[in-house]
Amino acid sequence: MKQIATQLKPFFEPRSVAIIGAPLRMGEVTLDIADTLLRLGYEGTIYPVYPQQGEVCGIKVFPCLKEVPGKIDLAVISTRRMTVPGLVRECVERGIKAITITGQGFADAEDEEGRRLQDDIVRIARQGEARIVGPNSIGTANPFFNFSTSFATPIDMEKLPIGLVCQSGMFFGNFQGIKFLGKGIDLGNACDVDLADCLEFFAQDEDIRVIVLHIEGASEGKRFLETAARVAKNKPIIALKTGRSELGAIRVRSHTGSLVGKGEVWDAALRQNGIIHAGGIEEMGDLVNAFLTLPLMKGRGVGVLSFSGGLGVLTLDACERFGLRATELLPTTQQKLEAMYPSWFGVGNPVDIWPAMIVSGLPHSEVLYRGLEALLSDAGVDAALVIAAAWMEILSPSVSDVISKAAAAFPDKPVAWWPYEGWVKAIPVARLEEKLRKVGGVGIFRTPERAINALSKLAQYWEYLERN
Amino acid sequence: MKQIATQLKPFFEPRSVAIIGAPLRMGEVTLDIADTLLRLGYEGTIYPVYPQQGEVCGIKVFPCLKEVPGKIDLAVISTRRMTVPGLVRECVERGIKAITITGQGFADAEDEEGRRLQDDIVRIARQGEARIVGPNSIGTANPFFNFSTSFATPIDMEKLPIGLVCQSGMFFGNFQGIKFLGKGIDLGNACDVDLADCLEFFAQDEDIRVIVLHIEGASEGKRFLETAARVAKNKPIIALKTGRSELGAIRVRSHTGSLVGKGEVWDAALRQNGIIHAGGIEEMGDLVNAFLTLPLMKGRGVGVLSFSGGLGVLTLDACERFGLRATELLPTTQQKLEAMYPSWFGVGNPVDIWPAMIVSGLPHSEVLYRGLEALLSDAGVDAALVIAAAWMEILSPSVSDVISKAAAAFPDKPVAWWPYEGWVKAIPVARLEEKLRKVGGVGIFRTPERAINALSKLAQYWEYLERN
Repeated sequence: MKQIATQLKPFFEPRSVAIIGAPLRMGEVTLDIADTLLRLGYEGTIYPVYPQQGEVCGIKVFPCLKEVPGKIDLAVISTRRMTVPGLVRECVERGIKAITITGQGFADAEDEEGRRLQDDIVRIARQGEARIVGPNSIGTANPFFNFSTSFATPIDMEKLPIGLVCQSGMFFGNFQGIKFLGKGIDLGNACDVDLADCLEFFAQDEDIRVIVLHIEGASEGKRFLETAARVAKNKPIIALKTGRSELGAIRVRSHTGSLVGKGEVWDAALRQNGIIHAGGIEEMGDLVNAFLTLPLMKGRGVGVLSFSGGLGVLTLDACERFGLRATELLPTTQQKLEAMYPSWFGVGNPVDIWPAMIVSGLPHSEVLYRGLEALLSDAGVDAALVIAAAWMEILSPSVSDVISKAAAAFPDKPVAWWPYEGWVKAIPVARLEEKLRKVGGVGIFRTPERAINALSKLAQYWEYLERN
Repeated sequence: MKQIATQLKPFFEPRSVAIIGAPLRMGEVTLDIADTLLRLGYEGTIYPVYPQQGEVCGIKVFPCLKEVPGKIDLAVISTRRMTVPGLVRECVERGIKAITITGQGFADAEDEEGRRLQDDIVRIARQGEARIVGPNSIGTANPFFNFSTSFATPIDMEKLPIGLVCQSGMFFGNFQGIKFLGKGIDLGNACDVDLADCLEFFAQDEDIRVIVLHIEGASEGKRFLETAARVAKNKPIIALKTGRSELGAIRVRSHTGSLVGKGEVWDAALRQNGIIHAGGIEEMGDLVNAFLTLPLMKGRGVGVLSFSGGLGVLTLDACERFGLRATELLPTTQQKLEAMYPSWFGVGNPVDIWPAMIVSGLPHSEVLYRGLEALLSDAGVDAALVIAAAWMEILSPSVSDVISKAAAAFPDKPVAWWPYEGWVKAIPVARLEEKLRKVGGVGIFRTPERAINALSKLAQYWEYLERN
């Protein structure tokens, strides 16, 4: 285990890196690994091994690996496929122990040649006890070390405590504000370094609190699942399994050359081994958000506080769908709430807070706080969801301050908030997210369905920990 | 039918409106219908009937309805429940034919009194042949007439060709950029004006191209479904049915007092009658976007063009889930595509366009155009989905221009685009949406799953029209 972590370290924290290949150009954009590293502020030594002479971005270019003077922790090979086995041999002869191969046309190709080349590479590397990431990979990224082998520049990195393992470099990117990077590794065809290796690495990495997997397939499924089950006892693992459909599985073979199984088999295997399954990119984003922001949910009862009866009803449908239940409130909770309502109003869960705001005579923020406090102090409520429009941030104290205060008083119960825009031009939700990210303890979600789903996964993971 | 449209017209285009009640205050925000109307630029006559003396927003206040001098097209009653039957009687005696009741505590209340008051109101209104919207309703909104009875100010209205019928005024609002208003009516408890009436109204309204329903329940289910089946032959109807869970159904009774049925029964009934079912707010937004932007999908074959093999695989899983299929490409299509690829690459659908961009030597925009044109000209491709990062907008010509050009050449086939942010800090997707909204013909979606789902509903509706 320790050994694997040591072997993978140069992919994330190399003191020196050789970039073998040539910069790409896309229209006006230059896609160059050396350039990316300089922009990121990488402090190690860069050795570009390029066909052109002279300098690239002010760094001396070497015509071949042999002429590079110093020790090389990591080599990144970005050349046409026929040249790769020879270059891997040169790396091995120089004693390089970490090699990333970005090019395509190996097990991902249609022809026999691709598979043969990939087998050659693995054989040569094993002779020299070198580890390989790829081929068909964007490599690694580590914002804690100002390092990335991505050719995209400027790549948008942030020191998030997320360990990302993917089989498409696209997951290094953003999806309309959803980020999975953190430290990242793209396995590509995964000819050598694989899912289980990366789980070992991130399990021991103190910068990482949540592990995120994009899985197309795994050649050593049993080892992967055993490793995951062990690691999941200490850190949550969230997985998006793609290539679920029959046709998807065929295309995966041509994308990364992996073996894949049926969607349902994967779902069951992941769940049994404590891995939290995400059905799509947005869901994976929601789950990362939940696990980074909120405490686990220690039961399946939800209390909902809504500014709109109609929107509250949506959450009940979602509870049924995702296996949570709206808690039947204790008599004491009921009494606290009823004190703020007109006598004819049937107070229940979801708590429709609007009539209380109109009728109680109390300041609006006070009604909100009392309602939320009543719910969270109910022993049957394991998590709360607040449905309050973003524009209510202008109340004094603001909605976000009220929710944060209530959440802070109950640190063992997750509190989620759906700040829809509503009638009035809104406070941007991104600003609320930014604010609450600093305060902590409250998770913002984009729909009540997505909030309830995320809470259900916090409950599922807690149940896994209890069983093990 | 014609008669119903005439009866409902004063709720959307009143030349004069009496506002009976008092402005609400929420912290620093005044929530006042008269103020909303002035800000909207409403050109009819406003008669505030308020307890306070003098003027409100520069308009003369009347102490009671009797003292209002002119003809009143619409009365809005926002007073405590006990006073409402008497006020409805006054309206009827003045010959007012359209009355909106915003207050709560009627069939939505827990007590007998609420139900009795609502029955009284209906009886009195029928005596005077007046129609009632509500109670427990925010009323109506019509940006084409600068009119709304919403107390929220400034309400964000836009002349969208959407007819919205809801049972919670919250749907007049925005949900992080998703808008359903258009012209809107909140049925509230629906004591008189109901779903079927509104379908008749919007069916005949030339400003409206798509009808959107938020349904908690319907008291006259048969009449509603028959009306919907007839209207759906001319305009698409998209419905979000809430209160699906057992508990949700109970809460709906206390929210609007409606009768509700089991979720599955509703799903089947909606589908049989040509109504497009949305499972949540985001999905409803996607479907509105699709039906407003795109032609119908006349078959179930999708062609996918992706800048990333890994992201392309996601769409296949989505196709299987939503009942579409990735078309097996014709030999001629295959040949057109293969001309741009290295020989070892297995070209298929989804088309992974990245290797062609790197290898073909053609300008990147040209590769994209040729790929998309090849897909759309394939007889088995009924719709195309493009997966290309938003930052590729900087190519020349831009990605959005290339996609628009290809879509314009095939006006009978819907073209969807998922512009994820990707590695590089992105062009905001909202800007792309704004641009393409003007150009038309290309729909932007936030995930490939959501794009495929929306396309599947365009196919489902086309099949309904073919059968009828």
